[in-house]
Amino acid sequence: MIESEHFFNNARETVNHHILTLISDDMPPALYEAMRYSLENGGKRIRPLLTLATGYVFGKDIAEIILPACAVEMIHTYSLIHDDLPAMDNSDYRRGKPSCHVKFGEALAILTGDALLTIAFDVVRDYGVKHDNEKKALQICHLLSLAAGPQGMVGGQVLDLEAEGISLRQADIEKIAALKTGKIISASVIIGAIAGGASEEEIAVLEQFANKIGLAFQIVDDLFDYEDSNIDIGKPVGIDQAAVKATIPGLIGTAQARKYVEMLFQDALSFLDELDRPVQLLSDLASKMVYRKK
Amino acid sequence: MIESEHFFNNARETVNHHILTLISDDMPPALYEAMRYSLENGGKRIRPLLTLATGYVFGKDIAEIILPACAVEMIHTYSLIHDDLPAMDNSDYRRGKPSCHVKFGEALAILTGDALLTIAFDVVRDYGVKHDNEKKALQICHLLSLAAGPQGMVGGQVLDLEAEGISLRQADIEKIAALKTGKIISASVIIGAIAGGASEEEIAVLEQFANKIGLAFQIVDDLFDYEDSNIDIGKPVGIDQAAVKATIPGLIGTAQARKYVEMLFQDALSFLDELDRPVQLLSDLASKMVYRKK
Repeated sequence: MIESEHFFNNARETVNHHILTLISDDMPPALYEAMRYSLENGGKRIRPLLTLATGYVFGKDIAEIILPACAVEMIHTYSLIHDDLPAMDNSDYRRGKPSCHVKFGEALAILTGDALLTIAFDVVRDYGVKHDNEKKALQICHLLSLAAGPQGMVGGQVLDLEAEGISLRQADIEKIAALKTGKIISASVIIGAIAGGASEEEIAVLEQFANKIGLAFQIVDDLFDYEDSNIDIGKPVGIDQAAVKATIPGLIGTAQARKYVEMLFQDALSFLDELDRPVQLLSDLASKMVYRKK
Repeated sequence: MIESEHFFNNARETVNHHILTLISDDMPPALYEAMRYSLENGGKRIRPLLTLATGYVFGKDIAEIILPACAVEMIHTYSLIHDDLPAMDNSDYRRGKPSCHVKFGEALAILTGDALLTIAFDVVRDYGVKHDNEKKALQICHLLSLAAGPQGMVGGQVLDLEAEGISLRQADIEKIAALKTGKIISASVIIGAIAGGASEEEIAVLEQFANKIGLAFQIVDDLFDYEDSNIDIGKPVGIDQAAVKATIPGLIGTAQARKYVEMLFQDALSFLDELDRPVQLLSDLASKMVYRKK
């Protein structure tokens, strides 16, 4: 995994640097500051890493697909800003720092999210123009719109809000996760594959890989939250807590949830095995996503 | 203007019908309902009419450019939903009906706006695929993103919020208007021109036409608000009122503002005269925009 780590570090640094070059300062300074603050709020950059790693599997260098990778991260960043709003999940902190609306006010936070979503599609267009590939750019535009819109992230957030305080079955929880976080993770992979010229069959296999790993990633996230809240609240895991926001660990318990993650991970890897490609980077990234520390 | 009226009525009906076919009901029902409610909240459809009329001037039928016209209207609709939010302009009504957040709650209103913005770019992509014109679709994608993003509508909304309670000079007021409403009006025209295969010179002339008519349109809007608020509040036009939200009528008075609108309208028409095209539709539409009833 040493070579993979080198790739991931390089890819992450490239994303961190490049994404800021994509916003011009020709805008109201407060908006610029809020956009930078949000984009710099250093996450793990999992989604663009998925795009870049998949592209690499199909022979594309980081530089060739950095633009769609950044577009994916912009859309992810916008979604976090809007999710944190008082009317939504009402989170004051994001990755240990004040969330965008706490730092810049609610109006500017809404507009910062809007701006990032709007720019993301222009970044995809830049990719098409720069690499003389309008067809691929439009395909990516379509994928991003589907993954981020009402059949994806936005729809998942609506279901998630509706589900608050209601106990759900496992299939419902997984459906919300698939929409809210799964589709954009899947799009991140497929965009890399499209940019890399993968065949339709390969894309279909990668989509199955991504669906498994996306769900595993979400469950690991929920496991962290679950453990945190037990430490904070100091009470044992109970059904009432699970009912606040229905999660897989809340429903089947943490031990079972961990086993389920392991199963999903193995399933994901088995799809990668179907590809006649050097998939090491992708399997290492999947491993990082599932066996990460918080 | 009888033939033009026929065109406008036909175009408006086509937009009203077609825009609803672009949202699938494969999404959470509450979100679908909120999206329909917002798209059906029958405005004048000025922006798509500009796109369709400009396209027609360059020989394109309504059916050939209905998709980008609908994309423009979706972006306009999203912007109204977000502008009305409590954290922004806090408007409870929109065109005499409860605004989206009053009807569906704040969270769903934010997400409905996000969804419409997201879908708009996919509608542009549909245009590219359907008419086998990826290059034009990407150009339109770029124009829409610029007009709607931080260098356009979103930037203008930030400046507008910052300007509340501050007295501005005319140049500043016009800059805000140019960003907040002017750029998307201009984009509406240019998108029709691009779809119609206009030359770069023609597009440059149309942009100047659109800038003039966009500003005139905004001032007429402000004149309506100004008159309304005087009737409602029952007090004479005064500087304190203008300071709440700086507008041209507030700054130079309603009589002067009306003269200014007339001047902008004549300027706009003079640009149309430079084109060697049958521009009657566009000049009639400009006239409707400026001499409309509320």
